[in-house]
Amino acid sequence: MAGSSFGNVFRISTFGESHGAAIGVVVDGCPAGLTIDEGFIQSELDRRRPGQSAIVTQRKESDTVQILSGIFEGKSTGTPIAMVIPNTDARSQDYNHIAEAFRPSHADFTWQSKFGLRDHRGGGRSSARETAARVAAGAIAKLFLMENGISVSAYVSQVGQLKLAQPYEALNLLLTESNPVRCPDPEMAIQMEALIREVRKAGDTIGGVVSCVIQNCPAGLGEPVFDKLHADLGKAMLSINACKGFEYGSGFEGVTLRGSEHNDAFYNDGGAIKTRTNHSGGIQGGISNGMDIYFRAAFKPVATIVAEQESVNEQGEPAMVSGKGRHDPCVLPRAVPIVEAMAALVVADHLLRGRGAKV
Amino acid sequence: MAGSSFGNVFRISTFGESHGAAIGVVVDGCPAGLTIDEGFIQSELDRRRPGQSAIVTQRKESDTVQILSGIFEGKSTGTPIAMVIPNTDARSQDYNHIAEAFRPSHADFTWQSKFGLRDHRGGGRSSARETAARVAAGAIAKLFLMENGISVSAYVSQVGQLKLAQPYEALNLLLTESNPVRCPDPEMAIQMEALIREVRKAGDTIGGVVSCVIQNCPAGLGEPVFDKLHADLGKAMLSINACKGFEYGSGFEGVTLRGSEHNDAFYNDGGAIKTRTNHSGGIQGGISNGMDIYFRAAFKPVATIVAEQESVNEQGEPAMVSGKGRHDPCVLPRAVPIVEAMAALVVADHLLRGRGAKV
Amino acid sequence: MAGSSFGNVFRISTFGESHGAAIGVVVDGCPAGLTIDEGFIQSELDRRRPGQSAIVTQRKESDTVQILSGIFEGKSTGTPIAMVIPNTDARSQDYNHIAEAFRPSHADFTWQSKFGLRDHRGGGRSSARETAARVAAGAIAKLFLMENGISVSAYVSQVGQLKLAQPYEALNLLLTESNPVRCPDPEMAIQMEALIREVRKAGDTIGGVVSCVIQNCPAGLGEPVFDKLHADLGKAMLSINACKGFEYGSGFEGVTLRGSEHNDAFYNDGGAIKTRTNHSGGIQGGISNGMDIYFRAAFKPVATIVAEQESVNEQGEPAMVSGKGRHDPCVLPRAVPIVEAMAALVVADHLLRGRGAKV
Amino acid sequence: MAGSSFGNVFRISTFGESHGAAIGVVVDGCPAGLTIDEGFIQSELDRRRPGQSAIVTQRKESDTVQILSGIFEGKSTGTPIAMVIPNTDARSQDYNHIAEAFRPSHADFTWQSKFGLRDHRGGGRSSARETAARVAAGAIAKLFLMENGISVSAYVSQVGQLKLAQPYEALNLLLTESNPVRCPDPEMAIQMEALIREVRKAGDTIGGVVSCVIQNCPAGLGEPVFDKLHADLGKAMLSINACKGFEYGSGFEGVTLRGSEHNDAFYNDGGAIKTRTNHSGGIQGGISNGMDIYFRAAFKPVATIVAEQESVNEQGEPAMVSGKGRHDPCVLPRAVPIVEAMAALVVADHLLRGRGAKV
Repeated sequence: MAGSSFGNVFRISTFGESHGAAIGVVVDGCPAGLTIDEGFIQSELDRRRPGQSAIVTQRKESDTVQILSGIFEGKSTGTPIAMVIPNTDARSQDYNHIAEAFRPSHADFTWQSKFGLRDHRGGGRSSARETAARVAAGAIAKLFLMENGISVSAYVSQVGQLKLAQPYEALNLLLTESNPVRCPDPEMAIQMEALIREVRKAGDTIGGVVSCVIQNCPAGLGEPVFDKLHADLGKAMLSINACKGFEYGSGFEGVTLRGSEHNDAFYNDGGAIKTRTNHSGGIQGGISNGMDIYFRAAFKPVATIVAEQESVNEQGEPAMVSGKGRHDPCVLPRAVPIVEAMAALVVADHLLRGRGAKV
Repeated sequence: MAGSSFGNVFRISTFGESHGAAIGVVVDGCPAGLTIDEGFIQSELDRRRPGQSAIVTQRKESDTVQILSGIFEGKSTGTPIAMVIPNTDARSQDYNHIAEAFRPSHADFTWQSKFGLRDHRGGGRSSARETAARVAAGAIAKLFLMENGISVSAYVSQVGQLKLAQPYEALNLLLTESNPVRCPDPEMAIQMEALIREVRKAGDTIGGVVSCVIQNCPAGLGEPVFDKLHADLGKAMLSINACKGFEYGSGFEGVTLRGSEHNDAFYNDGGAIKTRTNHSGGIQGGISNGMDIYFRAAFKPVATIVAEQESVNEQGEPAMVSGKGRHDPCVLPRAVPIVEAMAALVVADHLLRGRGAKV
Repeated sequence: MAGSSFGNVFRISTFGESHGAAIGVVVDGCPAGLTIDEGFIQSELDRRRPGQSAIVTQRKESDTVQILSGIFEGKSTGTPIAMVIPNTDARSQDYNHIAEAFRPSHADFTWQSKFGLRDHRGGGRSSARETAARVAAGAIAKLFLMENGISVSAYVSQVGQLKLAQPYEALNLLLTESNPVRCPDPEMAIQMEALIREVRKAGDTIGGVVSCVIQNCPAGLGEPVFDKLHADLGKAMLSINACKGFEYGSGFEGVTLRGSEHNDAFYNDGGAIKTRTNHSGGIQGGISNGMDIYFRAAFKPVATIVAEQESVNEQGEPAMVSGKGRHDPCVLPRAVPIVEAMAALVVADHLLRGRGAKV
Repeated sequence: MAGSSFGNVFRISTFGESHGAAIGVVVDGCPAGLTIDEGFIQSELDRRRPGQSAIVTQRKESDTVQILSGIFEGKSTGTPIAMVIPNTDARSQDYNHIAEAFRPSHADFTWQSKFGLRDHRGGGRSSARETAARVAAGAIAKLFLMENGISVSAYVSQVGQLKLAQPYEALNLLLTESNPVRCPDPEMAIQMEALIREVRKAGDTIGGVVSCVIQNCPAGLGEPVFDKLHADLGKAMLSINACKGFEYGSGFEGVTLRGSEHNDAFYNDGGAIKTRTNHSGGIQGGISNGMDIYFRAAFKPVATIVAEQESVNEQGEPAMVSGKGRHDPCVLPRAVPIVEAMAALVVADHLLRGRGAKV
């Protein structure tokens, strides 16, 4: 019940602390017979890796994955796939100050409250480093989705006040990886990058939004009532460090529409039932309808900043704290592969759960 | 795996279709020794009940709860509490048209895609009537929270374009039940009610936002990594019919702030560790920090409208459809007790899960 | 986590106390499109019902099932099937003595220890009456298995010292229902019935063994490692009231064999891979191999006896106790449909789980 | 759903194949603040290790455990404890014959049937090598139980026809580790060892029984209905490779007793409620009553033997097979720590689950 597992049929359990020996993940429930491209897993990790560009943290982790089990002669065997990513650049001394005072808007205080002790080094398990394990597992899920023709594409759609005006259909998502921000609009990407650089220079941080679209998902995925497809996607996103909000389809803006404007009319497009608009975001009643699934996830500004901040220590005494670790000025570029990974895990899980729907 | 259960330790399983014999819920994991006030359960159901005011559906369901098990001499026994709410006003003939064509932006098409058949009467299990079972279960959860001094208060903060400007601290939440809209600002409530009446007269519907605040929640609730407290709250809200978005604390708007503005400084308030601001929404690293937990949930306009709409039938042929059932012009007023119920279920579950945190 | 649910994909949750309003069950995860014969469900309940013959308890419960949800036009819809069995012959006054002292070898003391209070009437939820809910759910599972050609047949193979010498292959299992003991050997049935009558006359009780065979189960059911098919069958049996032991295939006796005697040689029987012997009991490495699955479950003598017994009350003071309720002298005849129900639930669950095994 | 996890609150997930890179386990849900003695974990593994004596397999695995996470400054942190045991003596060529034909009474055929492919090397994941991961996890559970004063002691009580006549109370369990058989009766141990040597010389194998007693377990552990304490113990034992049966308390033999002989009278022993006899095996109604919990688990003769046996290959063609790997003539001595580990995991899980029983 301790919360480090996700999914029901395609299920992952992550482990590891930021400055321990390693982080890792066990993927249980991956069907047998899936061709596993280890290079693809590594390439996904590389998209999340520190030091990949000038606008992310300069921690020097190679994030090299080692597969311990579950694959034989290049194929999944139906048994747990364990993957380990050793920690190599753990400058724990950078974090000694964390032991002394609770960093504002970090998890130091709450973990201490919950467990009575904590591994403070680099935030321990509350570090976003844990998400590397999710990306490795998500890569397996993506391989399974690819076999089913389903794609998952995320991108940065907002940094601070800079917000893409276009919907995803008006963007060329193949350009997402063409710039360090991971914004598929090259001009906006340049502005965003400049903003992030400016923020970093000020020793500060900034938030933003990742948008994601899942294409070619068949109708019928998602379970009634509690395990609705978008509810699981929402939980998946909200479980990512720094995520503060989730909306799908028309989202928060859709509440101002009338039903007559918001409803998506059905029509027959050469045999396929489609909708004329897609305010539903590809999901109706919690179940996919075959249209594109799209959603947005909000990420707050990174809590680690250079300036001194008011806080207290474990004894409750006043204590100033300031960021000393090598941190991201903006989490958004590295959040893109994490969002994709979590979305892929949700869809893979529901693909398998859906196999029980009919006699 | 079919999705009709929610929670881990305090766990509910709902059942029932809109026009079947009954809907109901089994609550498993409620600790023994809790005093159960059956009148309170009924009063919560009455807040969700159809026909409670002129601005909600006029279906005539009394929603009278029958408790079948789990309570002895006024106290919970630690065994499953089963509650049944018979369906009494099931005018199934109002829904014959549903059998013939998929209602736009309803769950008819997706359920048919998933299961190959469906109970079309009143939407069957995809009907929001299912949420009555959640409210009954949520009432048990609320009783458990009350024993722990925790309160959960939701209210309507937006209908269409009409949006409360004040944060929850500036409102008197005791006024929420003083008007049929369930907006604690009496003047705004009058405007919202007028808007809903206008929309209904036009045979149309409108969306909105429910805000919710959880007070006096102890620090330490929520599990690391996937089962973060806000991730479970988000899933809970997104699992409610018509919910399209969730945000907590600073939410989507917070992404435009700098870290130096957004961080919540800690201080010692006479022995209690508090934060000067609360952009965190009472949750840091997925775990409650003892401050107020607050969040917002977006609800789309109800999909049932009077006007004729384009659609297709099960054979994929063009078919027009228009609303004939007695529906809500705006789901928001009745969503308030549902939001509270789901929030209470999440907190109750995490209160119990938290008992395993320390040796 | 409170233990009233069983199964993973085909999952049941039972509720209800012996002398409360009703007992019941929610079956979640039954695939859509299964033809549900309500008469069959009732006929299974009738096999477990009190008062069915002179050698079982004479409590007068009709055990009439009411289906509240999940079935439409005679077919399962993929949504939870809720079934309720009202309690009608609840002579609670027969059980007032239970409130005063802990009945030896009953669950009174342990439930009181665990929960701090208990519904003592008829044993409350610890009563074997709860198993009626399992039989109703098991009937749904059986219908699903029948669609897959799988049969589950249990019978009484031992009462006290009276033990069938033949293996199941040498018996005509169609005779099981031909006598009140449910022993398919008519001569042994007569002896067993005489023994049970003698025991009852003495105000005493006696134990025995139920044997069960599952036929036509395809190879490949069961999950590696922990959720082995026989481990789930074992848990299912041991969860039945009064069950003290479980063995499958060669069981406890097989430990005296050498590997060379015990191993089951494979051969090709006209295209089907079979084994020459079946010490494996149809399961190898926790996964079915296509041969008959067979197992035995031991049931202790019923704890309720007429004679006075030494005990203590809630205050720990000495208190004598003697059985006053209408009890079974031997639980075996009524255990047969319960064993079948639990076995069917396990196999149905694994049939559905198995759908995720391959890409 | 793939079956490699066990437990609810104290939950383990194992991974790894016999001849892959490593096997391992993630323990999630261990409470924070538990002192972790790594030497104890290793010493438990050493009890299960190949090559520990002349009567077990001579495979040369050191089974050295590496802890990757979840422990900080000698204490558990409440986060997942990942442990890895590298495979070092993987002579895969010894197992090439397995690729060609299904070994009788092994899992080769059933895994192939289920997954369509398999890692045949040393039996892959169906190898009993997986149980090393359980022993490592069980050591953590034992440390938690020790903090609660609970002990778990298993021993070999039968090898082939050689069966201890005494109950556990008449044995000195401190002698269990004094001989390679792990039988606490030194004279019987000599006979058993001789039998195992004789069997091995014949290229054959033999089965037996492990008995286990759990002492000082508080009353109140175990959940009503399905997750009864003995049902979970039973499933735990039956999930161990080669286990064919489980019984607790009076077990199969108890069925011949009358209720008047079998019932355990309660009495007050200086303030503690005890029973005069303990046919219940310390569990009544699925919940511990504070008396000793004891049970027996049957293990079949190891399936790998030297003699040639009839079988078929993947094409269904006749193929002879004979054991070439270094195997155990009798699994019993090495099963003792595995039985203890699984029992400890069950009790630890229920200790934590029990924290939710009362308000």
